[in-house]
Amino acid sequence: MKIDILTIFPKMFEGPLTCSLLAKAADKKILNISCTDIRSFTKDKHNKVDDRPFGGGPGMVMKPEPVYEALKSAGVKKRNNLYKNPFKKPLVIYMSPQGKTLKTGIVKKLAKYEHLVLLCGHYEGIDERIIEWVDEEISIGDYVLTGGEIPAMVLIDSVARMLPGVVQDKLSVQQDSFYNGFLDYPHYTRPAEFKKMKVPEVLLSGNHSDIEKWRKEQALERTKKRRPDLLK
Amino acid sequence: MKIDILTIFPKMFEGPLTCSLLAKAADKKILNISCTDIRSFTKDKHNKVDDRPFGGGPGMVMKPEPVYEALKSAGVKKRNNLYKNPFKKPLVIYMSPQGKTLKTGIVKKLAKYEHLVLLCGHYEGIDERIIEWVDEEISIGDYVLTGGEIPAMVLIDSVARMLPGVVQDKLSVQQDSFYNGFLDYPHYTRPAEFKKMKVPEVLLSGNHSDIEKWRKEQALERTKKRRPDLLK
Repeated sequence: MKIDILTIFPKMFEGPLTCSLLAKAADKKILNISCTDIRSFTKDKHNKVDDRPFGGGPGMVMKPEPVYEALKSAGVKKRNNLYKNPFKKPLVIYMSPQGKTLKTGIVKKLAKYEHLVLLCGHYEGIDERIIEWVDEEISIGDYVLTGGEIPAMVLIDSVARMLPGVVQDKLSVQQDSFYNGFLDYPHYTRPAEFKKMKVPEVLLSGNHSDIEKWRKEQALERTKKRRPDLLK
Repeated sequence: MKIDILTIFPKMFEGPLTCSLLAKAADKKILNISCTDIRSFTKDKHNKVDDRPFGGGPGMVMKPEPVYEALKSAGVKKRNNLYKNPFKKPLVIYMSPQGKTLKTGIVKKLAKYEHLVLLCGHYEGIDERIIEWVDEEISIGDYVLTGGEIPAMVLIDSVARMLPGVVQDKLSVQQDSFYNGFLDYPHYTRPAEFKKMKVPEVLLSGNHSDIEKWRKEQALERTKKRRPDLLK
């Protein structure tokens, strides 16, 4: 999968993209991530990416022209359905609190595309007319962040986990929280006793069907108690 | 506000903490963020932070001892209510998909604390017994990520925005999406015409009450269409 990130803060991605799972996915050539600096497409001498909003009000708005040029540089054409195979289309995602809320279902769908273009807004957002080039607006949750950069990292990390070969043990992904609609069960490792707290006995029993039963009960109990909304 | 991040990937934070708003908040001494490497508290020669789960199954679990030592180094004592002023307590937050879902309401509450300790898990999670030292488990949404690092960035960024003096224009925060229970209205800036698309005329009218009315209608319309759940 190819991912283009369009941002005015490319440096923010240096740490997150070079650590852990994403670095491994890049090494294995499963993911090919590029960062493009939207500011490099400005034409004035101050490299201005933002301007005051029409109609007044607080904050600044990202100008449409440099964003448009950055989209073009990533191979994006105006939104259309001309692709025979829709998963080959560069899917433009605008990370925005106005979008659909990201959930595991959306993550699984995005993992099928060959090329994602992630547009990161800043300030009060991007000039609304850019929406003509956007396929999806996605929000990562009901809170406001300074820009779309951290949300883009969330999206990349969640999608990367679904790509075959990225997480070594496929079972690990399938037993994750939300994958099957439940929260995960509690995990324990050595030592068997820590600060006078013991690991639940069933986990030491070696009886696999008892262990599986206990884990299912724990996952259900937790989901009931903490997130009854998931059970609906 | 002081924030301690406990992680096995401190390098992931280098970019995000040194760009944009968070760098400014640190310069102004409003935020004081430290990253502690949990691995530095391991005592074996391989600096092992994880081990196989009791009861079998895929993946690895973070061992309790190094996490406990890292928590102690950040001034955390066992969960208790002995603080006269509860907002002075180092509030330990475990970033975990099993937690409460982060929303603007929780962000506003967290912004009142003087010291947050953010515990980032990895692999299948942290040994459950560590929960004795955790005050809150917080999830940023219904999807799974490789670790708690990106969620910690989300939490820090959202909380930082609420601290007085971080966002220059206070109105800007109060008009953000979710702050008043609505999505934001669309924004436009120069040029008045871009690729044959014009800015809505009302925004050029100079009539402030018309502009305000239009924006309120747009915010309501969008919320109805995209996120009717917010209106309940």
